[in-house]
Amino acid sequence: MELRKTVPHRIGIDLMGCDAAPEDLYRAILQLIQDGFPAQIVCFASYEVGGELNNSIIKCSQVIQMDDDPLVAVRRKKDSSLCQGLQYLKEKKIDAFVSAGNTGALLFAAKTTLKTLKGIDRPALLALLPTKKKEVAVLDVGANLSLKPDHLVQFAQMGIAYQKSRGIENPIVGLLNIGIEAKKGTPQLQEAYLKLDAMNRDQPFFAGNIEGKDVFHGNIDVLVTDGFTGNVFLKTAEGIAAFILEELSRNKYEISGLRSRMHYAEYPGAILCGVNGVVVKCHGDSSSETFIHGIKNALRLVEHGFLEKIKNQLN
Amino acid sequence: MELRKTVPHRIGIDLMGCDAAPEDLYRAILQLIQDGFPAQIVCFASYEVGGELNNSIIKCSQVIQMDDDPLVAVRRKKDSSLCQGLQYLKEKKIDAFVSAGNTGALLFAAKTTLKTLKGIDRPALLALLPTKKKEVAVLDVGANLSLKPDHLVQFAQMGIAYQKSRGIENPIVGLLNIGIEAKKGTPQLQEAYLKLDAMNRDQPFFAGNIEGKDVFHGNIDVLVTDGFTGNVFLKTAEGIAAFILEELSRNKYEISGLRSRMHYAEYPGAILCGVNGVVVKCHGDSSSETFIHGIKNALRLVEHGFLEKIKNQLN
Repeated sequence: MELRKTVPHRIGIDLMGCDAAPEDLYRAILQLIQDGFPAQIVCFASYEVGGELNNSIIKCSQVIQMDDDPLVAVRRKKDSSLCQGLQYLKEKKIDAFVSAGNTGALLFAAKTTLKTLKGIDRPALLALLPTKKKEVAVLDVGANLSLKPDHLVQFAQMGIAYQKSRGIENPIVGLLNIGIEAKKGTPQLQEAYLKLDAMNRDQPFFAGNIEGKDVFHGNIDVLVTDGFTGNVFLKTAEGIAAFILEELSRNKYEISGLRSRMHYAEYPGAILCGVNGVVVKCHGDSSSETFIHGIKNALRLVEHGFLEKIKNQLN
Repeated sequence: MELRKTVPHRIGIDLMGCDAAPEDLYRAILQLIQDGFPAQIVCFASYEVGGELNNSIIKCSQVIQMDDDPLVAVRRKKDSSLCQGLQYLKEKKIDAFVSAGNTGALLFAAKTTLKTLKGIDRPALLALLPTKKKEVAVLDVGANLSLKPDHLVQFAQMGIAYQKSRGIENPIVGLLNIGIEAKKGTPQLQEAYLKLDAMNRDQPFFAGNIEGKDVFHGNIDVLVTDGFTGNVFLKTAEGIAAFILEELSRNKYEISGLRSRMHYAEYPGAILCGVNGVVVKCHGDSSSETFIHGIKNALRLVEHGFLEKIKNQLN
């Protein structure tokens, strides 16, 4: 039987390294507390912020800047809000730490201060994204640029654990790839696919490869990828969402116009550049309508002398 | 002086390899012609399609399937619609070729039949995407999984040529990366950055690195990336756009609800997985509001025993 904790949880907050000013963050935190946030707050700042929380602000003498070299910064700036916060977390003076600081420094400091978990070689950044159904956990979204297949398997396990902690009984894992076949993608992805597939016996959890466009159907709970691809995935999703919402506001909700602008079926397929000829590649899942756009596009390319222009550019 | 061509351009069309049935494509093409499409159409099909176009359908005896090995298929299936179309293009019997067939086969066949352009080592797939301003040309969106820096430079040149052919006088190029600093990303990207930057003298065209979310502001005309990342970028953009449009229809344009679902500021930052502690990483450009969501998320993780669950999962 688990006893319910009666002391409030303690959340450590790095007031530095965010584009928002420390005072603004601080004011927002005060409001959060006034609104009945059920946890204790401990702030870390190198900045003079005052007010009701004074005895919960840990003053630090150093600041890690966004353009600091992560390794150097973490080694030399032990009394920064970022390093102090993680040290507090290690010593269990707080239960969690929130920071918007230098990602590389946060990763390196977390790894060296907190150590990685047993069975985990590389920490990963996990982000939650909306889909048509429930949210999908995406990892890694920026901690590791290059990975071995085993790291991707570990990410799958961490993602499953995360979704279980959110109440999903049997989280389903997908591997972000450029096609669903087992042989798609880099050798690392192919090997990760085989490893995950081999684990998929007693209690199936692995849905195989998944493409970016299908992630938002909401049929998987965990999306596994390397930090570079995951970061691009996340930021692209953000960028498109922001773009659409802005269009909606600007055009006073003229949905039909937006629909036609955003409807990718109206975009004219991909152009095969670099060969000596005009070749348009449509999606395999093109509708006739889409295909017609590809045809119109091919004519446009011919009319505009695309091939000649590309040759001129290369001379 | 360039004489205006009086004979119509000829567009070759692969009726095979698309999820849409050849008959449906064919009907759509007939409609296109009826609507006054100002070009001659030449179809390639291994399938019995009939009608008014009969003397413009090149019958082929073989079919390249979507799951065929590209190299084997192209070598053994010379009389497929895909190979025949490219052969016609080479022989200048058509001016452009449109296909939704096996991407690998199309690439390999195009490269061997048409040859690459002088100065180009690797063909790339280019796709056009909408932004807040004018459209951006993205390449490569799937032809090459791994690339050398010089290939990326060549892609920039091809993208510039393409946008010039669309009437943009001085196209601006961005390099898709996970941050804007020159040292961001893989060694290949860093070197490509330096090479493009060195070319950026007489007539500046290189805007440096750009993140996925900023592409949609529409300040660049050409987005350069490798085929894996570009494919993920494109499909993610498609997926999010489809998701949002579907939500709009389903919820009868309840914009405010959608806004809050899509507003990434309400998503709770990234969780640093794999270290022995609960660490939440917010964006550097977080607003106070966003940051507060990160804090709430941190508490949720602690309350739900995320760290324990992740440890259990790894045992």
